[in-house]
Amino acid sequence: MQKTPKSLRLHIGIFGKRNAGKSSILNSLTGQSSSIVSSYAGTTTDPVEKPMELLPIGPVLFIDTAGIDDIGALGEMRIERTRQVIKRTDLAVIVIEPGNLTEFELDLIKEFDRLSVPYILAVNKTDLKKLKDSSLETLKQKTSNIVICSAETGDGITELRKMLIKTAPPDFLESPAILSDLVGPGGIAVLVVPIDKEAPKGRLIMPQVQSIRDLLDGDSSALVCKDRELMSTLDKLKHKPDLVVTDSQAFLKVAADTPLDVPMTSFSILFARFKGDLVEMTKGAMVIENLEPTDKIMICESCTHHPITDDIGTVKIPRWLHQFVGGKLQIDHWRGHDWPENLEEYKLIIHCGGCMWNKREMLSRIMTAREAGVPITNYGLTIAYTLGIFERSLKPFPAAWEVYNKYKT
Amino acid sequence: MQKTPKSLRLHIGIFGKRNAGKSSILNSLTGQSSSIVSSYAGTTTDPVEKPMELLPIGPVLFIDTAGIDDIGALGEMRIERTRQVIKRTDLAVIVIEPGNLTEFELDLIKEFDRLSVPYILAVNKTDLKKLKDSSLETLKQKTSNIVICSAETGDGITELRKMLIKTAPPDFLESPAILSDLVGPGGIAVLVVPIDKEAPKGRLIMPQVQSIRDLLDGDSSALVCKDRELMSTLDKLKHKPDLVVTDSQAFLKVAADTPLDVPMTSFSILFARFKGDLVEMTKGAMVIENLEPTDKIMICESCTHHPITDDIGTVKIPRWLHQFVGGKLQIDHWRGHDWPENLEEYKLIIHCGGCMWNKREMLSRIMTAREAGVPITNYGLTIAYTLGIFERSLKPFPAAWEVYNKYKT
Repeated sequence: MQKTPKSLRLHIGIFGKRNAGKSSILNSLTGQSSSIVSSYAGTTTDPVEKPMELLPIGPVLFIDTAGIDDIGALGEMRIERTRQVIKRTDLAVIVIEPGNLTEFELDLIKEFDRLSVPYILAVNKTDLKKLKDSSLETLKQKTSNIVICSAETGDGITELRKMLIKTAPPDFLESPAILSDLVGPGGIAVLVVPIDKEAPKGRLIMPQVQSIRDLLDGDSSALVCKDRELMSTLDKLKHKPDLVVTDSQAFLKVAADTPLDVPMTSFSILFARFKGDLVEMTKGAMVIENLEPTDKIMICESCTHHPITDDIGTVKIPRWLHQFVGGKLQIDHWRGHDWPENLEEYKLIIHCGGCMWNKREMLSRIMTAREAGVPITNYGLTIAYTLGIFERSLKPFPAAWEVYNKYKT
Repeated sequence: MQKTPKSLRLHIGIFGKRNAGKSSILNSLTGQSSSIVSSYAGTTTDPVEKPMELLPIGPVLFIDTAGIDDIGALGEMRIERTRQVIKRTDLAVIVIEPGNLTEFELDLIKEFDRLSVPYILAVNKTDLKKLKDSSLETLKQKTSNIVICSAETGDGITELRKMLIKTAPPDFLESPAILSDLVGPGGIAVLVVPIDKEAPKGRLIMPQVQSIRDLLDGDSSALVCKDRELMSTLDKLKHKPDLVVTDSQAFLKVAADTPLDVPMTSFSILFARFKGDLVEMTKGAMVIENLEPTDKIMICESCTHHPITDDIGTVKIPRWLHQFVGGKLQIDHWRGHDWPENLEEYKLIIHCGGCMWNKREMLSRIMTAREAGVPITNYGLTIAYTLGIFERSLKPFPAAWEVYNKYKT
C-alpha cells in the first residue's frame, strides 16, 4: 500500500524535559512501542518519527524529541536536533510532570508563540502524583489546551487525542491547491517531464505525482509528456491547454515551444507558492538584477542526495548566475536541516523547492531569512530570472505578478 | 530523493549454511554494516533487505537469509522464511566454506535449477583455510560461476561483484514495456484514475505512476483523468487515442464511455502481462465460465493492508462472481507471501496484480499453481470476465487474444 508522503503529514512534535515521559505518551497515543521507553534520563537521542492515521485529521507524523535540557557535548547535539524539530512542527505537545512550569517549558512556549505553532500541555504521571489546583491555575494562564493524563494507566489519553484534533491548524484540513486552481474544473494542464539520469527507473518525482493528483482532485486532467514531445503533444489537442508546467531543466525549450498566449510556469515556481511564500520569493529573485561579482550568496538544498554531474544546485544555477552577473559570485552550499549562524553575510539565499519538506519548515526558513534581513528565493524563480523568462512564468500568479510590477518600477 | 521501487530491483538472495559468513559477504559487497555479524550460529533470523545501486545492472535488492539448516521450532520458521526468499530471488549467491558441497548446498542448487535461477558459489573464509584443488574441481562440475574470496580480508570481493553483474539475467537490463509498446512513439494513452477512499493524499498508486513513466520512456504521452471526466477529456483530442487504460473499479463506465474502435484495457491486465504471464492467466479466467455454486476457489492478495469497505478482493470480486455463477462459491482468502499446501482443492486461483512484487515471485506462483494443476488468473481479468468485457479488454494483446479464441471454440 502506498502511503501519504511525509511532507504532507501534519507534524506533531512531542517535547518535554528528560524523563517527563515523552516516549510513553507517544506510545500510548499510537498504541505501539515505537520509542525505547526507559527510566534512564535521556534515552531518546535521535528524534523518532512515527507516521499514523489520526482521524478526522488524516495522516500525521509524530516526532519524539531528545531531552532538551541535557548538558555537555552530547546534550548540545540533542538541543540542536530538538530545535530542528521545532522548525518543522505544526502542532506541539509539551509533556510535563505534575507541578509548575519551569524555565525550560516557558522557553519552549515562548518559541512556539513566536512561530505561531499551537501547543498542548500534557500533564503526565498523574497516577504517581496529583496535580494541585494551584498548579493547574498557573498552567491555565498560559493556555486552555491542558490535558491531565497518565501514559502508565492510560487515563486521559483519549482526551489528549481529541485535543490534538481540536488544536490542529484548520488549514491542514483544507490544503491549498498546487495548480488545479489555475486550471479549473474541466480544464487541462500539460506537464513536461524530462527523463534524465536523475530519474530513477519506474518513477516520477514527487512534485510531478502531486501535481497530477492535484489536477484530478480538482476535476481537471493532466497531459504528461517529455520536452522532446511537447510540440507534437500540444498539436493533439483541439484547443490550447489552460496551463503548461515544466521541470526547470527544460525551461528554455518549453518556453520556446509553448504558444505565447498559453500560461506557462515551472514545477519549482508552483512549489514556491504551495510550500512557501511566492510573493516573498519573487521579491528575493528580483535581487538577482543587482548582484555584482564577488557578492556572497548561499544555495540551499533540503535533500542530502549526492550531487550528480550537472547537478542543478551546484553546477547549473551557479553557471547561469555567473553568466547573468558577468563574473564570479562567492557561493556557499548548504544541505539538509542545518543552516549557518552568519546569515547576514549573504546578499541572497536561493533555496530548492523543498518537495520533501512540509510547509511549516519552509515558512520557518523564510521567516529566519527575513529576521536576518536577507532576501530569499528559490531554484525555479532563479532559473527563470537568469534565463529571461521570469515575467512569463510569474504571470499566472496574480499576487506575485502585482508585487513584481510594483517593485520593478 | 525518490528511490526505484523495490519491485523493480534485481533481487539477489544470499544463501548458505549458518556461520558460512553470509552477512559478512553482504557487508563487504555493500560496504556497510547492514546485518548483525556475529560468530554465534544463526544470528540472522529475519531476512535483511539492503537496496543499492550496482552499476551497470542498476538498482538491486540484496536479501540476507536465515540459517536454513537449523533444527527445532525456530529453525522450522527460518527454513520457511528462506524458502519464501528463494521464490523471489532473481540471482542467488551460495556462500560456502572451503571444502566440498554438502547435501544442504546440493538441495539449494537443485531448487535453483528447477526454477531456472542463476547462482554463484562464493567460497568464503579462504584466509583461514585454503580451497583444495580437488574441491574446486568438484565445485566446477556444478557451475563455472565460482568466486574464491574472504569477507574478512576483502580478497575476491571485487571479483564477486563482477560475477553478479555477469550472471544477472539479461532481461533485467532490458525490462519489458508495460504499455508503451501498444501505444508507440508519438502516440497517446488515456489513463483513467478514479480517486476514492483507497487513494492516499497527494499520491497515485504504483501501477499508475509506472505506466506514465513507461509511456514517457517510450516517447509517448499520457493523458490522465478521473472516470467522471473521461468523456470530456476524450473530446479535447483531435484524434482518438491509441489506448484507454482504466482502473478495474471503473471498468464498466469506462467501457461505455470509450468509443468501440478505441483499444481499451485495465491496469490490472497490463500488469498480468508485465509481472506475470498473460496467456496463462487468460486460460485461467476462462475457467470462470464453468464455475458452479459450491465450487471452491482462492483469492490472493500480495499486500497485507487492511481491507477497506467495498474492498476489491474481499467484497467486489466475490459479489461479481456470485452474480455470474448464480450462487455462492466457497472462497478462501490469502494474503502476503504465504500459500497453503492444499492447492489441489481449488478450482481456480484469482491473484491480485502483484504491483508490489517482482516478476519472479509472480512467475513462481504461476508455476506452483501449474504444478498443482490449478488454473490461475488475476483480478483485472476476473472483473472483465464477470462484467462481460473480457473480449474487448483482451483484444490489445495478440498472444492472449489468440489463446482466447482457440480455447473458446
